[in-house]
Amino acid sequence: MDTEAELIERISKALGEGRPARRAGGRPGGKSRRGKLAGIGLRLGIGDDAAIIRASQSREMVLSCDNFLEGVHFLPHAHPPEVVGYKALARATSDLAAMGAVPRNFLLSLVLPARRTGRWLDRFLVGIRRAARRFGMRLAGGDISRHPTVAISITVIGEAPAGRAVTRAGARPGDFIFVSGTLGAAQLGLEMVLRGLAGKRGYGALLRAHLYPTPRLGLGEWLARRKLASAMIDTSDGLSTNLGHLCESSRVGAVLWQESIPQVRVPRELANRGIDAHSLALDGGEDYELLFTVPRARARAIPASFGEAELTQIGEITKEKGIRILRTGGRVARLSPRGWDPFRRKR
Amino acid sequence: MDTEAELIERISKALGEGRPARRAGGRPGGKSRRGKLAGIGLRLGIGDDAAIIRASQSREMVLSCDNFLEGVHFLPHAHPPEVVGYKALARATSDLAAMGAVPRNFLLSLVLPARRTGRWLDRFLVGIRRAARRFGMRLAGGDISRHPTVAISITVIGEAPAGRAVTRAGARPGDFIFVSGTLGAAQLGLEMVLRGLAGKRGYGALLRAHLYPTPRLGLGEWLARRKLASAMIDTSDGLSTNLGHLCESSRVGAVLWQESIPQVRVPRELANRGIDAHSLALDGGEDYELLFTVPRARARAIPASFGEAELTQIGEITKEKGIRILRTGGRVARLSPRGWDPFRRKR
Repeated sequence: MDTEAELIERISKALGEGRPARRAGGRPGGKSRRGKLAGIGLRLGIGDDAAIIRASQSREMVLSCDNFLEGVHFLPHAHPPEVVGYKALARATSDLAAMGAVPRNFLLSLVLPARRTGRWLDRFLVGIRRAARRFGMRLAGGDISRHPTVAISITVIGEAPAGRAVTRAGARPGDFIFVSGTLGAAQLGLEMVLRGLAGKRGYGALLRAHLYPTPRLGLGEWLARRKLASAMIDTSDGLSTNLGHLCESSRVGAVLWQESIPQVRVPRELANRGIDAHSLALDGGEDYELLFTVPRARARAIPASFGEAELTQIGEITKEKGIRILRTGGRVARLSPRGWDPFRRKR
Repeated sequence: MDTEAELIERISKALGEGRPARRAGGRPGGKSRRGKLAGIGLRLGIGDDAAIIRASQSREMVLSCDNFLEGVHFLPHAHPPEVVGYKALARATSDLAAMGAVPRNFLLSLVLPARRTGRWLDRFLVGIRRAARRFGMRLAGGDISRHPTVAISITVIGEAPAGRAVTRAGARPGDFIFVSGTLGAAQLGLEMVLRGLAGKRGYGALLRAHLYPTPRLGLGEWLARRKLASAMIDTSDGLSTNLGHLCESSRVGAVLWQESIPQVRVPRELANRGIDAHSLALDGGEDYELLFTVPRARARAIPASFGEAELTQIGEITKEKGIRILRTGGRVARLSPRGWDPFRRKR
């Protein structure tokens, strides 16, 4: 069975792009090899969180598309239509946050069975609108088709000053690795929904992380504008998987410090059922936090928090490939990507 | 049951866009009300073939997305994967032709069952590549997910000089209506595939129209650059439906001259089975020809053919709403939209 990364590699090769674009963003403030194309030109193609298209001398457009499917990304009996709408747009928009772009527009491709075109659609649109207003986006277009299960594909369009968008490919040995917020909360929220615990008191924040995630738009834009991040990605598929992508694109490795990883606090009731905070933090998906690297000399410019999100230094980039984790007690272990991959069964 | 147009209207209202954008393109050479927004701004939102986003003082980006679904738009037993790939991109790109834009990039959102990730995917990519090369497009990004049936959503990105993209909304009473090529050929090709006649000799051109349609990119761009078309749309859903959309957006009506409509020649063998050229030409979908209106004073600038496509004057725009058809013999009849609508059973 192919993994998602292998499939993307095959698509990239078949469509004549060679290997996924690497280092096109270069070092913060560096010059892209493709940056001098005249007219509207592609500066960064597939293999990153988003594509970069040159719009003018001074501005670039950042585009990404994201699927949100019934039975894969949401469950009709567990997720109300408002959540489906909100989350579909929030997920896609997180890719813009991960590039440091400012969201502007989106295209909504909607596939619906006839029985979902009534009240369900209205409530879905309430969720989309809530997200669109929150992120400052306007609907630009879309398509609608009939099919037995709901499938949503959203293309988001953002804007960044030329050369400032942050790719996955600029991390260098010695850079520090930072992450925003707390890891594992969204996955824990999902576990609660699946176990029928969604209605219980005191779990609001965990549920919110799962149902109504907040892309870190302000943080991403700030890091890009200040040229602080050498590489960036969101934690949509889990820390272990997303750090793997970042390292692969940058052709580096990483060491994580287990003690430093900001992991979700698991309520005792759930911990007793075998839910482990450490696994959630390493492999739990859908947190939509930002994972970014900062050249060592600039690390002191990163504040302890940004808005309501804490910013935590969790490791450093190494020349040696692969990801290792420095366990509590000093043992070093290899870390494999165990986050979400639609083309590989989990664990 | 809602029609597609009603659903789009509901989506448009729910997401705070008011009614679908009208007249935003205005008369050829006219000024858009939204044309002076600073920065990257939306000039034309949903309700047209594509959205227009201002990229710089001199250029606009034209974006559209299009679904292509197993069981709805293609049948796995009848359509080889190369056709699925080619046609998915060709369909979407036709929306750029209908705006007069030059295609540049596309994003590929792919939903596949695991059994389609091997040879089927490779052959699908061959089809996509063939289309991309033919239309001069580069893959910019995408997403891939696993699901039981194949669903493709493609976002295409094109470019046009500022203010030159042609919308559906600029037709005025007295304008002549033109169409490129021959109508009904793609639908006839589909009938042949469905009736198991695809292998028969002499039907190559009909099959090609169905399997490997050619968006009229050169024609669309030429009409836009020369400011000849006051409104334009492609015939993806059939003449009766697409002319209805154009008239609705322009708040006008139309009279078609039955005698003039360039209809496909139906081989006797198929005519004997009840397949009627006139119905195919009026209601058959997927021809991807261009349907455009030209101010009367400029109609003489339209040549008899452009490239390999004949250009035929088939009627005129009227102040009175609704579409009428002047039948052979002089009778005038109302024409209802009977083309493809995914949310209404056909006929």
